[in-house]
Amino acid sequence: MQPRRILAFVLLLAAAASARAQEGAEDPAPAPEGTLRARASAMLKEALRDRRAHAHLAELIAAAPKRLAGSPGAEAAVAWGASAMRRVGLDAVRLEGITVPRWVRGSGCSVVIHADLDVAEVPLAALALGGSTGTPREGVTGEVVEVLSFGQLRALGDAARGKIVLFNRPFDVTVLNTGRGYGGAVDQRVRGAVEAAKAGAVAALVRSVTSEPDDVPHTGNLRYEDGVPEIPAAALGVLSAERLSGRLRSGPVRVTIRQDCAMLDPVPSANVVGEIRGREAPDEVVLAGAHLDAWDVGEGAHDDGAGCAHVLEAARLILATGPAPRRTIRFVLFMNEENGLAGGEGYAERHRDALGRHVLAIESDSGGFAPQGFTVGGGRPVLDALAPVAAALAALDLGTVKDGHGGADISTLEPAGVPLMALKVAGERYFDLHHTAKDVLAAVHPRELAAGAAALAIMAFGAADLPGPLPRAKVKDG
Amino acid sequence: MQPRRILAFVLLLAAAASARAQEGAEDPAPAPEGTLRARASAMLKEALRDRRAHAHLAELIAAAPKRLAGSPGAEAAVAWGASAMRRVGLDAVRLEGITVPRWVRGSGCSVVIHADLDVAEVPLAALALGGSTGTPREGVTGEVVEVLSFGQLRALGDAARGKIVLFNRPFDVTVLNTGRGYGGAVDQRVRGAVEAAKAGAVAALVRSVTSEPDDVPHTGNLRYEDGVPEIPAAALGVLSAERLSGRLRSGPVRVTIRQDCAMLDPVPSANVVGEIRGREAPDEVVLAGAHLDAWDVGEGAHDDGAGCAHVLEAARLILATGPAPRRTIRFVLFMNEENGLAGGEGYAERHRDALGRHVLAIESDSGGFAPQGFTVGGGRPVLDALAPVAAALAALDLGTVKDGHGGADISTLEPAGVPLMALKVAGERYFDLHHTAKDVLAAVHPRELAAGAAALAIMAFGAADLPGPLPRAKVKDG
Repeated sequence: MQPRRILAFVLLLAAAASARAQEGAEDPAPAPEGTLRARASAMLKEALRDRRAHAHLAELIAAAPKRLAGSPGAEAAVAWGASAMRRVGLDAVRLEGITVPRWVRGSGCSVVIHADLDVAEVPLAALALGGSTGTPREGVTGEVVEVLSFGQLRALGDAARGKIVLFNRPFDVTVLNTGRGYGGAVDQRVRGAVEAAKAGAVAALVRSVTSEPDDVPHTGNLRYEDGVPEIPAAALGVLSAERLSGRLRSGPVRVTIRQDCAMLDPVPSANVVGEIRGREAPDEVVLAGAHLDAWDVGEGAHDDGAGCAHVLEAARLILATGPAPRRTIRFVLFMNEENGLAGGEGYAERHRDALGRHVLAIESDSGGFAPQGFTVGGGRPVLDALAPVAAALAALDLGTVKDGHGGADISTLEPAGVPLMALKVAGERYFDLHHTAKDVLAAVHPRELAAGAAALAIMAFGAADLPGPLPRAKVKDG
Repeated sequence: MQPRRILAFVLLLAAAASARAQEGAEDPAPAPEGTLRARASAMLKEALRDRRAHAHLAELIAAAPKRLAGSPGAEAAVAWGASAMRRVGLDAVRLEGITVPRWVRGSGCSVVIHADLDVAEVPLAALALGGSTGTPREGVTGEVVEVLSFGQLRALGDAARGKIVLFNRPFDVTVLNTGRGYGGAVDQRVRGAVEAAKAGAVAALVRSVTSEPDDVPHTGNLRYEDGVPEIPAAALGVLSAERLSGRLRSGPVRVTIRQDCAMLDPVPSANVVGEIRGREAPDEVVLAGAHLDAWDVGEGAHDDGAGCAHVLEAARLILATGPAPRRTIRFVLFMNEENGLAGGEGYAERHRDALGRHVLAIESDSGGFAPQGFTVGGGRPVLDALAPVAAALAALDLGTVKDGHGGADISTLEPAGVPLMALKVAGERYFDLHHTAKDVLAAVHPRELAAGAAALAIMAFGAADLPGPLPRAKVKDG
């Protein structure tokens, strides 16, 4: 009807886009050769053009779709990691050996609400928690007692003895930051079994730690404690947890848990390490890492295949766009983040004498979604030192650098005063699929993954190429 | 292996999350009753808790999966819109009649590369462009000439006469902002047929305007011009366009286009309008709108079902969390954005005398992805006036308010000096599915959609409740 107006609007958009391109945020007038801004822009363009990060991820998943530490798949992932680093062109590619736990899921997990006079037997959606003991073949049966906190459990006194405890505190979905929702509920998964055992319970069931109200169970590690009985524990899908809770409102409910998972003897494995050697101060190191291992129920595409793809593609982007930075960038694919942290511990031990010259450690372990910047510890001095890198990222719409955390693998470097940093990505979808069968390649968007790799490349290169020294993080006591 | 360290890390995260919650960005210590920040926080929490926006969208798609203006589906969408506004509790819900074009796609579009001695006939992935004429039953056949720009076409002189022009300039995927990539290629779709006809061509083929290198064709409107022959035009999937281009490198290629789409007589339709009446200045209006119509090849879930869901849910959030704002908020579901803009024109004509009291018009038409803030015209004075609302959004991590565009439907209000604003959302995935069969409900994430609705609610409420007046946008000459 009014085609001229549509056209006018479209042309207005195009003109504005072109005007912006000239002034520009993302595509500035060519900066002087060799400046960080020009290099950063080249890295982002190459990442978006080639989308190699997604190809790396597809390769990893094809080579090792299941790669929990200690499994044959994990060793396939290690072999792939070394091969991929060599193909990218990194120097000094090597495996650094460690010993990892070997937990096997077995043939599955069954949780069933017993039939009673009114209601038929109800199977619940469940997954053994990582590290859990199995049950006897006939299962563990008990009456269920539901709690929302450890305090509530302790207040029950003896009422939980011989029972099965359902930890049913929800992930708070009313806060936008899903990391906070996760942080507010995950203690149930990590410590539920121990707290239940202390109360005399025979098993623990944990509501899946997720923002998605579906019935897909989320696995993840638990922790036993010396001197406390190791009782079996499983995650329930959110709807299953709600169903069980609903049944409890009308009276006592008995469930049976059967699972044949088991902890076997530890086995050897390795971190995979490669480098871009610094052109001025090669013994000063910026570490950029992610973890190769993944939970066994999906493909670990976001957690943390995406991080591995970020690391490899960041290396390629740096090598493809110009000379090496002043300092060395060391790329590390850690093993055993999910159920042990042997990789992070092993790295810290092996390189103990060099940690004083690790100027920054960056981890990507929040998924392959659109990048939003970085969080870093060490406070204002570290933020100030990184300001030129932050400005280059912001100019490309790759987010902001804020005070905050690093990641689990690199947390072992904290006692040495290494500033720890994490790549931050859009978090709306991560906990829908974290530690589930839904964490598959198809859930990773190639452009989002590519942009994350560019952000990591820019930060790693920028920090490694800063003329001045980076401040150390404050070492905490204890 | 090192369960204590994992636990320590998890607890550190939890403690930090809790510390942030206390200081905090998203969940500040309760602000004084009635302040914008407290209201904004309540709206976001309610949006994330209820996820009603997604339910609205599912309802719209169930009621009117196909709803191109002029179609029976569009009328079903109008009926749904009025019913949904009443159920949400808006006042003065009504239909405001307009006349819309009626274009029908017919039974389909076929584009085939002719067989020659070496190569068999090759069918290409194609969709008629909206508004295109059909071809005779036997199709239009011609040799293909490929160009990357209108200038290149004009430089061909008579060489395009009797031919079929392939417009094959790619969407620039190397810029992060996909809106810029779109703006740099969409002229081919809008004006390609006219430019080809001026050069004497018999038909036009246009590379789909998308960031995704697949073979899904993207439709969208074209524009004919008085006095220029109306030749048929179709979009090709990117891989099909590349295939055709590849064939051209080895010599002349003939294609046949067959499509039975047609422009019929205009029909009556309507915008759907409802209000929250202002408690102090009810004749001053903040408009919040989106468009009800959608291209017929998918479900229009992101474009612009998501915008409709944002509008309805924003209304509910405002009504659910406290008193009405000082000014009236008028919610408008426009008809015919995609192929005519009769809704935007009709609104501007009907309300001409009241536009001086329209203090702001906001459109959501960029999809249902995670919100990143707003763009608004009118420059610094408008940005300054909206600073308190921007602060409330930023405090909730809902993005920033920047200088920029409004949207197509509300562009008709620009001559009256109404400041125009658009809800900005994450853009990485939008042009993968824009105007395609892939734009379906399953591609919309409930939390992302909910957060967008909250952002719209906060902006509409905040602007409508500002104590002082909003500056007018500068009226452009011509």
